[in-house]
Amino acid sequence: MSTMNSPPSGLAPAAPPRRDARTTKAAILRATRYLLARHAHADITLKAIADRAGVSAPLILKYFGNKDTLLAQVMSFEADAAALLDAPLDALGRHMVRHLLVSQRDHGADPLLRIVFAPLHGEQGDILRANFRAQVGDRLAERLDGPDAGLRAELAVSVLLGLGVMYGIARGTRLRAADIDDIVDRYAPAVQAQLTP
Amino acid sequence: MSTMNSPPSGLAPAAPPRRDARTTKAAILRATRYLLARHAHADITLKAIADRAGVSAPLILKYFGNKDTLLAQVMSFEADAAALLDAPLDALGRHMVRHLLVSQRDHGADPLLRIVFAPLHGEQGDILRANFRAQVGDRLAERLDGPDAGLRAELAVSVLLGLGVMYGIARGTRLRAADIDDIVDRYAPAVQAQLTP
Repeated sequence: MSTMNSPPSGLAPAAPPRRDARTTKAAILRATRYLLARHAHADITLKAIADRAGVSAPLILKYFGNKDTLLAQVMSFEADAAALLDAPLDALGRHMVRHLLVSQRDHGADPLLRIVFAPLHGEQGDILRANFRAQVGDRLAERLDGPDAGLRAELAVSVLLGLGVMYGIARGTRLRAADIDDIVDRYAPAVQAQLTP
Repeated sequence: MSTMNSPPSGLAPAAPPRRDARTTKAAILRATRYLLARHAHADITLKAIADRAGVSAPLILKYFGNKDTLLAQVMSFEADAAALLDAPLDALGRHMVRHLLVSQRDHGADPLLRIVFAPLHGEQGDILRANFRAQVGDRLAERLDGPDAGLRAELAVSVLLGLGVMYGIARGTRLRAADIDDIVDRYAPAVQAQLTP
């Protein structure tokens, strides 16, 4: 819940609390990912996205410009990779694990997990996979020293992806009940071992 | 390609080589998983499964009895967990990683990955998630000594799930080019660290 739009204390709110911009954008992106996993690009309407996200079509236009820029944003991992990799190499494993968990818990979003909804066949799946490899795997590999940087980057991302699946999709009950610091302590070494072996 | 049904060498085959039973069963299960991720149980016909798998409906009945037993088999992780966990605890990390990679490479199947296609809402997704937690997570946790066995089991399964996603869905290029023994050496310690910390 945002506190930015809260009324001054002591005043009753005039309307139900509005979702803040970040939550609304996340809902729009989530709805778009859902539809992209099930329909061809051309068949997805702004109205379908708006209905699924529980917002108006004009609000989508306000935040994302038009349907094509919204879809392109969902197909790209650039922004998510930038946030995910935003730490010094020797602290990157912990940062990646924490960033993923906080994103899922607080924003209902995962920086990488939409790769699992990439259709196995067809152009959309191919674009998403190519983006994922270039924007996440290759970009991480460029940060790594030593032999087999490309393979080690893919393995580090694998470890992270699995946490996203277990937390967000399988909804592992112990995992969701655990403290994020505890999970970071237990899990980050498996990521870091690939980064700085 | 199976060699079991090959004609004696020197004879031209009378018909195109048939898929062997294991490959055919895998194709039927794959088609069923695909449809289960997109349709309600009741809406899935034997004919739709047969068409997608490229087999006849009677062949499905021969292998699986009826539609309900087939669907139940796809919703259950019992058989996959039995194979996945079939190793002594001190060698289990290596076994799990190798088993997953060999399953994907040689049979186009993954023991756990259908959890990622569990619908987020609705009864099918709930059943699949509950089965996954009980038949994979809890079953592994029973094997573990020491504190937090349930959480550690979920984290071990997370590590493994991520490899399945990267290999099978994201199709990490370095990963797929690498030798399975090399991946096992690099990746299994992250699984084993949760099993026997």
